[in-house]
Amino acid sequence: MSETEAAERPSLATLNERITRGPFHRWLGLSVVEAGDGEIVVECPWREEMVVNPDAGYTHGGILATLVDLVADWALATTKLGRPFPTVDLRVDYHRPAMKGTLKVRGKVVRLGSTFSTCEAYVEDADGKLIASGRGTYATTTK
Amino acid sequence: MSETEAAERPSLATLNERITRGPFHRWLGLSVVEAGDGEIVVECPWREEMVVNPDAGYTHGGILATLVDLVADWALATTKLGRPFPTVDLRVDYHRPAMKGTLKVRGKVVRLGSTFSTCEAYVEDADGKLIASGRGTYATTTK
Amino acid sequence: MSETEAAERPSLATLNERITRGPFHRWLGLSVVEAGDGEIVVECPWREEMVVNPDAGYTHGGILATLVDLVADWALATTKLGRPFPTVDLRVDYHRPAMKGTLKVRGKVVRLGSTFSTCEAYVEDADGKLIASGRGTYATTTK
Amino acid sequence: MSETEAAERPSLATLNERITRGPFHRWLGLSVVEAGDGEIVVECPWREEMVVNPDAGYTHGGILATLVDLVADWALATTKLGRPFPTVDLRVDYHRPAMKGTLKVRGKVVRLGSTFSTCEAYVEDADGKLIASGRGTYATTTK
Repeated sequence: MSETEAAERPSLATLNERITRGPFHRWLGLSVVEAGDGEIVVECPWREEMVVNPDAGYTHGGILATLVDLVADWALATTKLGRPFPTVDLRVDYHRPAMKGTLKVRGKVVRLGSTFSTCEAYVEDADGKLIASGRGTYATTTK
Repeated sequence: MSETEAAERPSLATLNERITRGPFHRWLGLSVVEAGDGEIVVECPWREEMVVNPDAGYTHGGILATLVDLVADWALATTKLGRPFPTVDLRVDYHRPAMKGTLKVRGKVVRLGSTFSTCEAYVEDADGKLIASGRGTYATTTK
Repeated sequence: MSETEAAERPSLATLNERITRGPFHRWLGLSVVEAGDGEIVVECPWREEMVVNPDAGYTHGGILATLVDLVADWALATTKLGRPFPTVDLRVDYHRPAMKGTLKVRGKVVRLGSTFSTCEAYVEDADGKLIASGRGTYATTTK
Repeated sequence: MSETEAAERPSLATLNERITRGPFHRWLGLSVVEAGDGEIVVECPWREEMVVNPDAGYTHGGILATLVDLVADWALATTKLGRPFPTVDLRVDYHRPAMKGTLKVRGKVVRLGSTFSTCEAYVEDADGKLIASGRGTYATTTK
């Protein structure tokens, strides 16, 4: 990729400014902590409303699905495409219950296409244990 | 199924009482409006924090994934199993953007198994248009 | 849909002639037995090479995945689109082992879109038991 | 992992002997070319019956789904579990058409669990281009 193209990629500050424009992203308290070419790391702090089971304290699977979807999608914003795209479909595997604590989510482009792109994301807890992971197909048609 | 077993199935009031024990379900404002054997209908009102894109007003795909996951899961609570189970994996197809308005989600058991069960859910908007749909695998081991 | 458009939909004979152009479809011995608007039923006879486990006699999950993929796809050929389209992604749930015997596969369009469409298929054995089912996303861009 | 446990892992020769017991695996002409702890590489030569579209020469997506399913599954055979397990569900992303030529499929365990495990596989063509990839959930209950 040429320097010109690389220069178009948003900075960490720009990514943070843009990702938090979404009200649900603000509710989640997201922050982008790393960004490379086709790779991004986003942190999400815990909040009590995220819990599904008040006895066990587990975070709702829907919160984890949300993180997989959005972080896989925002990995596209670190490529020459420069922004996220509509999700066509999403698949999430649940590996362990998520308890109270900040989650770190690593997103990565699997294949960049002219019509559809495949991205993946891995959700880890504060101890680095894999909580959930999955993939999405994104409609990357720019015409 | 015998009358005794059928009698064990929770009433609509009980389902509502139980589904809203989860803090995230309360945040979503869920209400169970119908329940049969292996079928359930849940409504979810709109709230501003659900939006992903403040310009277009689209509801976040993670909210829709949450609804598919939980309503497919709670369809299990209407069977002889009598409760939801941990999600093994989730797959969601996005059909149309969801705008402001109450969503109606229909959950259904596809196959009830002794170790794993497959359930599906369809999210419709107030006009009855299909917004998203999908399936989950649930760990229905009761041992 | 107007009569003109309906007339463009392929007949059962045409569907059979076209689906068996594919060498793998001929190897599978496929035959289209029913076709409606967005719905299709395809039969697949058993052959010994389909087995994964020679002791138990189970049909390979890849054969079942193939049937879900292609029958969901050919449901598109019964719509005004008139043909199958490239698979973007495929998801298959396995419900029961498939033993020796003809499989009947019902395909159906879930949502027809201008860029991508979602279709599903259900694989049943000769006793009508559900063996596998699933969904695919298809790239229905016709431009 | 102790030496004793490590010793239980099958050799490449044993893996090849066992994977080709399945009639469909013999039809595919599979050979295991590498195996580590939770990782496996399997090659699959092309045969004319695999084609879906005789004009373009594309390999059927069902063949690619089969390869993702079985190679992800056989990655489990390289762990202390020592064998493949029944597929609960499978998800496949199609990245590029596969033409005539041997396919190399890399399988890997994402998470090993006591009830179910997640594995993934990547299908590459002879030029090392990514053709398809995906994940399966496997029922690794050994009780």
